[in-house]
Amino acid sequence: MVKINPHLLKLNSNYLFQEIEKRHKKMQKHFDIAFINLGMGDATLPIPSVVTDAISSAVLELKSEKTFRGYGPSHGELFLKKAIKENEYSNFSFTEDEIFISNGTKTDISAIQELFAEDSIIAISDPAYPVYVDSNVLAGRTKAFSQGTYEGLVYLPCLEENNFLPVPPNFSCDVIYLCSPHNPTGSAFKKHELQRWVDYAKKQQAIILYDGAYESFISSSDTPRSIYEIKGAEDVAIEFRSFSKSAGFTSLRLSYYVIPKTLSSNVFSLHDLWKRRTDSRYGGTPYPIQRGGEASFSKEGKKALKEIIFKYKQNALFLREGLSSLGFTVFGGIDSPFIWCKTLNNLSSWDFFDYLLEKAQIITAPGVGFGLSGEGFVRFSSFPKKEFLEEGLKRLKKIV
Amino acid sequence: MVKINPHLLKLNSNYLFQEIEKRHKKMQKHFDIAFINLGMGDATLPIPSVVTDAISSAVLELKSEKTFRGYGPSHGELFLKKAIKENEYSNFSFTEDEIFISNGTKTDISAIQELFAEDSIIAISDPAYPVYVDSNVLAGRTKAFSQGTYEGLVYLPCLEENNFLPVPPNFSCDVIYLCSPHNPTGSAFKKHELQRWVDYAKKQQAIILYDGAYESFISSSDTPRSIYEIKGAEDVAIEFRSFSKSAGFTSLRLSYYVIPKTLSSNVFSLHDLWKRRTDSRYGGTPYPIQRGGEASFSKEGKKALKEIIFKYKQNALFLREGLSSLGFTVFGGIDSPFIWCKTLNNLSSWDFFDYLLEKAQIITAPGVGFGLSGEGFVRFSSFPKKEFLEEGLKRLKKIV
Repeated sequence: MVKINPHLLKLNSNYLFQEIEKRHKKMQKHFDIAFINLGMGDATLPIPSVVTDAISSAVLELKSEKTFRGYGPSHGELFLKKAIKENEYSNFSFTEDEIFISNGTKTDISAIQELFAEDSIIAISDPAYPVYVDSNVLAGRTKAFSQGTYEGLVYLPCLEENNFLPVPPNFSCDVIYLCSPHNPTGSAFKKHELQRWVDYAKKQQAIILYDGAYESFISSSDTPRSIYEIKGAEDVAIEFRSFSKSAGFTSLRLSYYVIPKTLSSNVFSLHDLWKRRTDSRYGGTPYPIQRGGEASFSKEGKKALKEIIFKYKQNALFLREGLSSLGFTVFGGIDSPFIWCKTLNNLSSWDFFDYLLEKAQIITAPGVGFGLSGEGFVRFSSFPKKEFLEEGLKRLKKIV
Repeated sequence: MVKINPHLLKLNSNYLFQEIEKRHKKMQKHFDIAFINLGMGDATLPIPSVVTDAISSAVLELKSEKTFRGYGPSHGELFLKKAIKENEYSNFSFTEDEIFISNGTKTDISAIQELFAEDSIIAISDPAYPVYVDSNVLAGRTKAFSQGTYEGLVYLPCLEENNFLPVPPNFSCDVIYLCSPHNPTGSAFKKHELQRWVDYAKKQQAIILYDGAYESFISSSDTPRSIYEIKGAEDVAIEFRSFSKSAGFTSLRLSYYVIPKTLSSNVFSLHDLWKRRTDSRYGGTPYPIQRGGEASFSKEGKKALKEIIFKYKQNALFLREGLSSLGFTVFGGIDSPFIWCKTLNNLSSWDFFDYLLEKAQIITAPGVGFGLSGEGFVRFSSFPKKEFLEEGLKRLKKIV
């Protein structure tokens, strides 16, 4: 008789963003005007034509017998790995072979925990992108969800006193999820802060899973864009990157990650083990989409992406100042698309979310949905179009 | 200290198709002429322009602000689900909502075992597509690989006496992997044979994972194209389908599968559990590629795909007859792109593979690489271009 994976039943029945959408739809029925989503993590600016044209050309290659292609390598096409190496990692010693191309950081960071033993001690920034926790729940590393947390995980609180970023604990962990610029708090590690984590990992012989999906938003000079800028990181860190936010690829699904060959656990090469796993379980990323990724590194592509990021960053400043001038207490939004906003009157995240939904027809992302330490905050985002940010602030002005 | 997932270490160090490529490359060095791959499972005929043009148009939508799209649903776009429902499943009672769009049957069928408890009794056709076994090894359901099998799995031998297809065992299993037309043996279930499996699953309250990646090659009238043609199957079967072979999408990555809401385990809806899991772990399939899938169901698309399949099927007959007339003992190739060929002189699969590689500069797929019951066979395929099949047969003629 078929038996269900008991860990599946431990997941909250709703994924955070589905729950937000559900509440929005329910409330929308009572209003004639459209709601404005100021919490969304989705890109809104169109993809540069140099990128879409490259994808289009690559697709059209497939209709001709001479240029048709079948399966590509499960870990990605060399042309894209080379472009990434040259443009993102030219100062580092690892080669193209250490870069894996994939179909989104969500998949990548949810899969990577398969590298580690079930009884590994897993430490996760709190609050954080829900996938870190969920993938470990599904892998059976926790007991049931109770009072906002899963027993069996180490939560690293990101609170105001530590600038909403995790600090190394005074005990041993095996695998640590870090994200910088941090989603959802909008803070980013300074060099010395990240060095502490690398030193910790070296000492504990731990592995850092470093989610850099928002790295293109970093502009402060002492804020590293890659963890490999930190001495020793190539021995302890896997870095994840995405084209979703930097190039508006959310509907195209393209990402990459680096597993340096110097990263090792005793006698085993994590790189080789993961490559073997990828051959077994992943069929590769669509060829034309990879050509789009390559084009984003062309001279024209880089210029266009810079402009996109500049616009989002301008949005972030506009929103940050706007919220601040309305009396909200805000953090982040400097090296990040996200602004971390205290709720009013000590409301809980969901109560404040519901309040803004009903009173201002504004959708945010409730902090507690990203973890217990996010309670009392909501996430605002710089991804909505400027006109929506303006209208959103107008609506907020009426209720404060 | 980081601890490796011990199950990763149980996998054979080489994925079958990597091992084939390795041996080919090594041998190729000694020859001036190009080797011919007659064992490949990859498409070679170009993709119909109605499909590539639809993808190209969809990509170009993304460069304009008005038609830009961000994240789509993790389980797929409604327009494609509707096209699949109308064209593939119009006679069945389930709705679009029961269809999941994804990025390749390899990923899908490797992931689906996460639905089931670790101590489930898993039965797998032998020989079979390596992913069925590998994904269960990685999930910790086996001991180490020893003498061609993993202890902990039930192997269902596909031998000559049962027409190279598995038959229900006389004991209970929880989850059964079936594939029809079967890869690699090239046989396909008749209706009454498949009915026996559905009846078995009903009786044992088991789930059938039905890999129909090659269903478009079926032309015999008593051979079902979908397991849902079998009475009661909607209560016990998940069906997997691919655009890879039917539409040449191997470099585009598009697939779908059906989890009927009537499929249940006691009180739990497998459909709902999987949808929640998909929200957590999958970011969705690229929007333009899904438009390509939709276009393959247009009138023009269907006509073009029919022609492609016709060509491959002609290849299969040509190859089957050619091999047969050279004295080889062959099976399959009627409702399938694959031909199952006995080795000469009772050679082992790998010895025969190496022999053909060296003596005829021909690459096949060794049967034992798909499982112990494949020993003594190699897989030939109808996917190579006609001219290569002709040249391949010429080369074979010289050595028999």
